[in-house]
Amino acid sequence: MLACLAEPALIDHDSLFATDVRERARHFLSGTNGKLGAYSDSKGHLVFRKEVATFLEARDGFVADPEHIFLSDGASPSVKMVLQLVVGGKDDGVLLPIPQYPLYSATMTLLGGQAVGYFLDESSGWGLDVKEVERAISEFRTKGGSPRALVVINPGNPTGGVLPRSQMEAVIQLCERNKIVLLADEVYQDNIYADNVSFVPFRKVAQEMGSKVELFSFHSISKGVVGECGLRGGLVHCHNVEQGVIDQMYKLCSINLCSNTLGQAAMALSLTGPPDNGPSRAAYDAEKDVVRGALKRKARMTHNRLNAVDGISCQPIAGAMYAFPKIEVKGDMLKKAASLGKPVDQVYCMDLLMNKGIIVVPGSGFGQVPGTFHFRTTILPDEDTLASVLDSIADFHKTHAS
Amino acid sequence: MLACLAEPALIDHDSLFATDVRERARHFLSGTNGKLGAYSDSKGHLVFRKEVATFLEARDGFVADPEHIFLSDGASPSVKMVLQLVVGGKDDGVLLPIPQYPLYSATMTLLGGQAVGYFLDESSGWGLDVKEVERAISEFRTKGGSPRALVVINPGNPTGGVLPRSQMEAVIQLCERNKIVLLADEVYQDNIYADNVSFVPFRKVAQEMGSKVELFSFHSISKGVVGECGLRGGLVHCHNVEQGVIDQMYKLCSINLCSNTLGQAAMALSLTGPPDNGPSRAAYDAEKDVVRGALKRKARMTHNRLNAVDGISCQPIAGAMYAFPKIEVKGDMLKKAASLGKPVDQVYCMDLLMNKGIIVVPGSGFGQVPGTFHFRTTILPDEDTLASVLDSIADFHKTHAS
Repeated sequence: MLACLAEPALIDHDSLFATDVRERARHFLSGTNGKLGAYSDSKGHLVFRKEVATFLEARDGFVADPEHIFLSDGASPSVKMVLQLVVGGKDDGVLLPIPQYPLYSATMTLLGGQAVGYFLDESSGWGLDVKEVERAISEFRTKGGSPRALVVINPGNPTGGVLPRSQMEAVIQLCERNKIVLLADEVYQDNIYADNVSFVPFRKVAQEMGSKVELFSFHSISKGVVGECGLRGGLVHCHNVEQGVIDQMYKLCSINLCSNTLGQAAMALSLTGPPDNGPSRAAYDAEKDVVRGALKRKARMTHNRLNAVDGISCQPIAGAMYAFPKIEVKGDMLKKAASLGKPVDQVYCMDLLMNKGIIVVPGSGFGQVPGTFHFRTTILPDEDTLASVLDSIADFHKTHAS
Repeated sequence: MLACLAEPALIDHDSLFATDVRERARHFLSGTNGKLGAYSDSKGHLVFRKEVATFLEARDGFVADPEHIFLSDGASPSVKMVLQLVVGGKDDGVLLPIPQYPLYSATMTLLGGQAVGYFLDESSGWGLDVKEVERAISEFRTKGGSPRALVVINPGNPTGGVLPRSQMEAVIQLCERNKIVLLADEVYQDNIYADNVSFVPFRKVAQEMGSKVELFSFHSISKGVVGECGLRGGLVHCHNVEQGVIDQMYKLCSINLCSNTLGQAAMALSLTGPPDNGPSRAAYDAEKDVVRGALKRKARMTHNRLNAVDGISCQPIAGAMYAFPKIEVKGDMLKKAASLGKPVDQVYCMDLLMNKGIIVVPGSGFGQVPGTFHFRTTILPDEDTLASVLDSIADFHKTHAS
């Protein structure tokens, strides 16, 4: 439909966009037969999957096959698709971190399988101890369950933790030992704030270990420094996954025909950026640096100010976009929670909303060690707003929960 | 990310687009806080749902509530969501037309419910006889099943049939009598080709009958004359549906956060078009007329040429985008199918592909009366290509299946 253009023939596109941008646009359009509005391959247009493969190869140091990449309407639908493959009946279990992003528990409920929780270790910056995972697996097996898959969210949502390589290696060995599939939710891989911490992809570690673990890795345009979450673009990459399984995934995603093609394009664009020497590169890098710098400052500010409050303790926000501080609640709020029959953190969050107009999410929505209480908040508001939000939380905690 | 623009400040947007286009864009942007890249409400941005409500009101003659509209990544995910609400266990059944679009049977398999087929009447242009639906319901009940919902695809995919109002009234009464929910797949409502045939929405009929049937109606940007299928935009409208059910739908679709916002915008745009007296209106209408005129000619050409072949009979293509002709197969192909142990229509379609390079879909993929054989083809190729495709099919049928 061209009717919206005033005088289409008179527009000089070349003066509007830089040459490298126009070249990429032409390349993408030729890879879609000039028809971005048409259905694509159910895995996504090959031209975009090739860009993703290029990114994976540069990131991990070995080639990636575009046929092992499925583009989607965000990481969430990809996760749901893989969980659907993994869960065959009510005794099938998927190991989920506690705390975890509720997508996983909600999807397990819908699929009729079992969510099997393993606790992250708050005291070590939300570390992942495989002994705790082994405990969860063995208790689940004792009850007759079949563990099928392990979910790791790294960098962590809601925890803000980033796994060290040693813990990742132990996780991979655990999956091999127990013959379970590994789901690596790595949507925050471009959001790292702590010094001396870096993101390491599970795919790279598995390959370098020579592991045969079956690994599904997820990524998204919703996070990073792009944050185009409303466009809905995501992907799952399959590493060491049998061809027969990939064929079934293909069949499964073909029910919905394809994911939205603009989200596919945005996924490709967000991973590879303009060419290194292109005229747009400097502006692109500069804009990313501005966003990254601000996120880093805000992660530190959030961590420091929360920890300055008596009764709130917050682990370092090494990555992702959240703080998940532990709260010690005293006084009347405990009685209020008891009399309402509600979890203390839920009353805390509701009172914070009513008193200060600030929305945070109770820890019980993500899971937490029984008897402990947390809330999740984000570092995303601009710096001035964030500072005043943190001041308000401090004031609220002092006056209402101490 | 603005880095892609050569000199953003120098671009005169006002000279690029007509005033009514710019006004609509500003209205939509203000309804999304200028942030189309951010998450929307899980139902979709209110500004777009209001446009849909305006369309429904104009179409059906009574108001629609934007809170009863859920925008989605295409009609398919909306259908899946409603089927998920409807199916609670393995004895729950959903009545599906035979032939039907395979989305429905595939989704029922995934949900673990039962697909209960009712036959459409080919001889009357694929009409819907409620006696046949009653037969299917009563047989299913005898086997211990609980019928929960009835799916009607109107205009029909793959049949090309369009239901007369009398049959729709009988369907609504049947749903009320049997206390089942009605799913109206109306994605082809803007694709009507036959004279003296018009599309009537189930919502309008139900309202005018004063019926209390619970009705879910589906629409999409993938069909009509827009056909922007790759952008993934769709919707479900809930009519007479209890608030508690709508609340559960809201919860269910919030697992995926939201549908893609550009698909939402396209859905709104495709239904309402530029303002009646705007400078873009004439070009918009003219372009639509061109597409509609071509589709109408191609529907007739397909119908006429297929019926001209001895051994092929095709019902009128009153709407949608397909022909679903019945084929009479004779000679060696019957022996070949028997020796391969494959359905005759599958061998027919594969041989057509190998001999003529033409892809059509075997009727067994959609369902058909046992002992009859069909294939589905589309009227979408340009007129010259379509003419030569139909010639090839005629030649193939004569030489290989007669």
